[in-house]
Amino acid sequence: MELKTYLKEKRELVESFLGSYFGPEDAPRVLFDSMGYSVQAGGKRIRPILCIAAYEACGGKADNIVPQAASIELIHTYSLIHDDLPAMDNDDLRRGKPTNHKVFGEGMAILAGDGLLTEAFVLLADPRYRHSSLSASAVIKIIYELAFAAGAHGMVGGQAQDLLSEDAEPDAETLSFIHRHKTAALLSLSVRMGGILSGADKAILDKLNLYGEKIGLAFQVVDDILDIEGETEVLGKPKGSDEKKKKMTYPRLYGIEESRKIAKELIDSALDALSAFDEKADPLRAIAGYLYERKN
Amino acid sequence: MELKTYLKEKRELVESFLGSYFGPEDAPRVLFDSMGYSVQAGGKRIRPILCIAAYEACGGKADNIVPQAASIELIHTYSLIHDDLPAMDNDDLRRGKPTNHKVFGEGMAILAGDGLLTEAFVLLADPRYRHSSLSASAVIKIIYELAFAAGAHGMVGGQAQDLLSEDAEPDAETLSFIHRHKTAALLSLSVRMGGILSGADKAILDKLNLYGEKIGLAFQVVDDILDIEGETEVLGKPKGSDEKKKKMTYPRLYGIEESRKIAKELIDSALDALSAFDEKADPLRAIAGYLYERKN
Repeated sequence: MELKTYLKEKRELVESFLGSYFGPEDAPRVLFDSMGYSVQAGGKRIRPILCIAAYEACGGKADNIVPQAASIELIHTYSLIHDDLPAMDNDDLRRGKPTNHKVFGEGMAILAGDGLLTEAFVLLADPRYRHSSLSASAVIKIIYELAFAAGAHGMVGGQAQDLLSEDAEPDAETLSFIHRHKTAALLSLSVRMGGILSGADKAILDKLNLYGEKIGLAFQVVDDILDIEGETEVLGKPKGSDEKKKKMTYPRLYGIEESRKIAKELIDSALDALSAFDEKADPLRAIAGYLYERKN
Repeated sequence: MELKTYLKEKRELVESFLGSYFGPEDAPRVLFDSMGYSVQAGGKRIRPILCIAAYEACGGKADNIVPQAASIELIHTYSLIHDDLPAMDNDDLRRGKPTNHKVFGEGMAILAGDGLLTEAFVLLADPRYRHSSLSASAVIKIIYELAFAAGAHGMVGGQAQDLLSEDAEPDAETLSFIHRHKTAALLSLSVRMGGILSGADKAILDKLNLYGEKIGLAFQVVDDILDIEGETEVLGKPKGSDEKKKKMTYPRLYGIEESRKIAKELIDSALDALSAFDEKADPLRAIAGYLYERKN
């Protein structure tokens, strides 16, 4: 298994689906352009890829669940658009391009986010995108879990706490709450969704959960480190932007070296959680290493 | 059937459910306070009541579907919070109270809207809120239809067109697009959802659809008229605010008298659509009249 090839193949599966999901006749045009602008702005597509890799680790075939995996990317994209707004993180650049509201204006960016969030559920509940191997109860379950992970008890709650904690003195409990909710919840859900879609039993789902939670947290710790040490060109946004906003981050609380150690331990625990899986879980294992070593 | 009593009873069913839906331990507290502030800001609860009335018209018992009906109110509430934002309609008052962002700030208001929108799907997919008479396929169907009506092809699309049309010269086609999408889509879905939940066949659903579309449009025409003729105290917001923003409205395009006539014709068509229903549809009939005669 060559990770680079694997990531490229799966990313293309997801991008090909997303690229043809909205049609040229959809109206109002500006709204769909605004949604498409952010959906097609690139990115690692790591969430849908994790979903597919978990599905494969349980013996499934990627092609069966591309739409379901892509629905997570719609949610992730909406969250980026809203996070970048002036009333939130007020960012002008994302992946090296002007943020959505810089191009389409604030009102349209809010609506594009709302549209993408809602579309994830249109897509998941649309019978035309459901492979015959997926039961109705599995569909309801992934809708529930995705909405829960994305909503006020998950990602939205994490973003709210992040907003409330700007300029506050960092403390371990708040930092952990923010990272578990803001980032880890949706990453972890991505892995879990792959398991649910494959019809995995509780024992397997628990192992996938553990893997997902650990890499989810590690992802955010690495993000915090990259914000300090990364290169602006590779990051696609100015480095040091968390510092400038006095964001609550791991390096700010623990220092860089200790943060790196925490990330490494999380990745090791993630790999441990997969010990009972066979070689079909190799992509999940390789992704864990990649998330630790990534440069953007 | 006494309409006032009927509306009060059903409104209390919905409000009692919504009032205990979020718990005191939900965190972060400010986010849930912000969501609760708008959910509990009153209002007619006309969408969930329409859903219940349609369900009853098809022979169902209201108690079975209160959570599903309430999910529509979560969506409606989110749309009000986002519509009121400075980047959108920039309203300070809603139902006589300061708008969400005036109390909690713009960032939190955006997140409260995101949280409520997402929670509608948590609620619909949560097995604890599903009555035993509801099949898994009915649940998926209402999720699909609600998301479609609320999203970029429905309400969000209407709001986007509304935003794009400020200061534009009014034209009939654009006005119709805005009103069908921004307001009528979700009202019409409310009626249709009641039918789907009851397991109604296509012929019945088509009649409910027709009723829903007609009252949905009438609702918005009456709204436009009230914005000009209503009393500020009864409306809960300053009258004339559409005019001031050069919103595209029926009175602006057709004049007040003609707009009133259009609304009346829509209501008559809505009543015609119900001609094959027995007395169990009397609440739907009475609501049509009420929507035409309402003062706020």
